[in-house]
Amino acid sequence: MKQGLLVVVSGASGTGKGTVCSALLESLPDLAYSISATTRLPRDGEKDGVNYYFLSREEFREMIDEGGFLEWAEVYGNYYGTPLKKIQERLAEGQDILLEIDTQGALKVMEKCPEGVFIFLVPPSLEELERRIRGRGTETEESLARRLGAAREEIGIGRRYRYVVMNDKVDLAVERIRAVLMAERCRVERNTDIFEVLEK
Amino acid sequence: MKQGLLVVVSGASGTGKGTVCSALLESLPDLAYSISATTRLPRDGEKDGVNYYFLSREEFREMIDEGGFLEWAEVYGNYYGTPLKKIQERLAEGQDILLEIDTQGALKVMEKCPEGVFIFLVPPSLEELERRIRGRGTETEESLARRLGAAREEIGIGRRYRYVVMNDKVDLAVERIRAVLMAERCRVERNTDIFEVLEK
Repeated sequence: MKQGLLVVVSGASGTGKGTVCSALLESLPDLAYSISATTRLPRDGEKDGVNYYFLSREEFREMIDEGGFLEWAEVYGNYYGTPLKKIQERLAEGQDILLEIDTQGALKVMEKCPEGVFIFLVPPSLEELERRIRGRGTETEESLARRLGAAREEIGIGRRYRYVVMNDKVDLAVERIRAVLMAERCRVERNTDIFEVLEK
Repeated sequence: MKQGLLVVVSGASGTGKGTVCSALLESLPDLAYSISATTRLPRDGEKDGVNYYFLSREEFREMIDEGGFLEWAEVYGNYYGTPLKKIQERLAEGQDILLEIDTQGALKVMEKCPEGVFIFLVPPSLEELERRIRGRGTETEESLARRLGAAREEIGIGRRYRYVVMNDKVDLAVERIRAVLMAERCRVERNTDIFEVLEK
């Protein structure tokens, strides 16, 4: 059984990461979304094991101590993490898994799973990024400037990924990511079985 | 102007390299076929600058001495080579170039142009390879055994390529190569310009 691909997609705030990942999952029924664990309370309609695994702080800390997370972080007093064991099991079954995580989480995953497929989404331009953040209509000029500054800093981390995908249009970004996955399946190091059979 | 991709496709004899490359060129009008130079005489209908650049042995040797070939070889007393300057010029203009060459030539190109996209075609199985070579109807049992042995040896060199593409069906092989090219265009090291603009 061939190992599945661990697909890691990140992008600075405002690059449309969520939209692209949703469209990607829809176009690739064989790609599974990795469900995160969190200590924050479920919002209306959120279900355990569907949107998140909802854990108590004690349970979460125990999992940290046991090395149970591929990566985890504390954000505004809540823990968020990617459960390791479930992902390993599914990859071993040949299941491709999508991780939609921030750049800090992705850097940790690069260390533990260098064979992952690391994709960084970028906006077509800074002007467009500003337009998209403005478009949400929830920002003051000050918070907008802060978010733009943070986004630009985050974009620099993208240089450490393997692929950079421009999100000029969602369907083009999805097409590029699909091509990346097909190409990665053709990498020689993922196909040593072919050579073993042909060289017999 | 972004550098074009140097796409190198090889495959053991009988893997259908020629058929796949023709179909690939047809499906990608922006991909240009690199014309080889040779000292062998033109066959009926072959035109200089279209099928080959036809050179005298003296001209060819002079080009070797001037470092004018990306790779060259002598086969049955005739020289064959890939002219370097033309390829460099076209790549610099952003033109993608397809080199359909044997494994020995490809190994030389890997040394000089590690940024090339190296794709190794394989047959779906040894049985299928044998069937295809037999299908040509031009082989004795002895030469068949020799060709199969040589093909299996050549397949081992494929481990040094970046991509292995199975030619189970021509259109599937072409689809995989197209995906590889799209993915390669997304590689971070080919897109440093994007980061320079966004980090400004």
